[in-house]
Amino acid sequence: MKPETVLDLGNIRAALVRMEDTIVFDLIERSQFFSSPSVYQPNKFPIPNFDGNFLEWALLQMELVHSQIRRYEAPDETPFFPEKLMKPILPPINYPKILASYSDEINANSEIMKFYVEEIVPKVSCKQGDQLENLGSASTCDIECLQAISRRIHFGKFVAEAKYQQDKPLYIKLILAGDTKGIEDSITNSAVEAKILARLLVKAESYGIDPSLRYSQNRQNKVQPEIIAQLYKQWIIPLTKKVEVDYLLRRLEDEDPKLINQYR
Amino acid sequence: MKPETVLDLGNIRAALVRMEDTIVFDLIERSQFFSSPSVYQPNKFPIPNFDGNFLEWALLQMELVHSQIRRYEAPDETPFFPEKLMKPILPPINYPKILASYSDEINANSEIMKFYVEEIVPKVSCKQGDQLENLGSASTCDIECLQAISRRIHFGKFVAEAKYQQDKPLYIKLILAGDTKGIEDSITNSAVEAKILARLLVKAESYGIDPSLRYSQNRQNKVQPEIIAQLYKQWIIPLTKKVEVDYLLRRLEDEDPKLINQYR
Repeated sequence: MKPETVLDLGNIRAALVRMEDTIVFDLIERSQFFSSPSVYQPNKFPIPNFDGNFLEWALLQMELVHSQIRRYEAPDETPFFPEKLMKPILPPINYPKILASYSDEINANSEIMKFYVEEIVPKVSCKQGDQLENLGSASTCDIECLQAISRRIHFGKFVAEAKYQQDKPLYIKLILAGDTKGIEDSITNSAVEAKILARLLVKAESYGIDPSLRYSQNRQNKVQPEIIAQLYKQWIIPLTKKVEVDYLLRRLEDEDPKLINQYR
Repeated sequence: MKPETVLDLGNIRAALVRMEDTIVFDLIERSQFFSSPSVYQPNKFPIPNFDGNFLEWALLQMELVHSQIRRYEAPDETPFFPEKLMKPILPPINYPKILASYSDEINANSEIMKFYVEEIVPKVSCKQGDQLENLGSASTCDIECLQAISRRIHFGKFVAEAKYQQDKPLYIKLILAGDTKGIEDSITNSAVEAKILARLLVKAESYGIDPSLRYSQNRQNKVQPEIIAQLYKQWIIPLTKKVEVDYLLRRLEDEDPKLINQYR
């Protein structure tokens, strides 16, 4: 993929729309299981050489495997445990430079983990409490959800880079002025946000109901569409923006000083 | 879960219907990537201390992690690498005895791997060939698909056990007579099979199209519904039956000899 293809705003938008499907699917899968608080309680299960909760342990194991198949070489993947990754066993891919060199340092995963565990899990689970046989299944679904949400939120880096490339003068001035509010306004499109929420309601409805039961009394939504729209409104969209702003605020670290000087 | 709940045919059927959703979701996710033949080619990537293809290596790593969170203690989970599993780090669950003691020995996973790689992957992938950046992603999706299909097919053991419990005299006679055909006929319900296929077409359609584009020119099915129905018709349903028959043919190994003698 060429940088100009990756940074085409139409392509970015299409990728973001496709990620909604993955997130909705993953939340529907998670909804089969109890909320499973034991999974999120630090050191509830004594794990040798590990300090943390069960989900964190399981997620770390997955990242260790995935790092070996070079998941985190991809600029659109952001690990939860960047300091613990292993070397890939596949030959390296020389991705073209698309994002700024500090891009990996912008990592919202600890915030994602927090709102996911505290706000999302209790709302999408089919029932509150533990079901001992399903702690592993619940955490496996959690990992899918977390990875999908994390990819969506950190995709903000591509949006930010694309907007920066489109209008360097505007952004260089805003960044030099430290105008966080101005940057945020420039990347906010309320009409698009409203469209996302409307589309999520339809997707959650369409993917979350067994269509062969659509007109029966058993018709049941696996996850309430409002919960998914709310997840986006309250967490995913604002955190994506935060990633974009954080990325842009540092953007001059990776810009030609001569160009910057023209705007001082 | 009590054995009588697990072996209730209504509950088993509901679980099988729910698994369809998972399988359809997983195939839709796989369809984002190229067919990626390199992933399935033995020793295409030299992996230290491993003889096999890349997918097998990645799947083994996952099973090693999942075995530690006791996935394979559950009677409805069947590993692809049973001889290599690790010990769980969670306290063991004492599942009530539901299936016969030899149940773990009935394992159709090598057949599942074969038809999945040869027949399903080329048909659901968005394009034929390799896309180097996505070999890891493709194989991650493959693992989800394989595990979901394997769970569905081996669930036949519960169907078989439930049917055996419902009519021991019939099955003891058929088993003593080595009447494979009779056993197969007794577990076959063509009307139910036709319903499954019809429902899959509707599900693939409903879950595979972005509903906000349903009436637009961009309306696109991520996976052709006929491919998913065909997968069930040609592979999943026959292999489930094979699992059921294999399970039943050995069922007297775990029956009271006195009862068996009444039918000799």
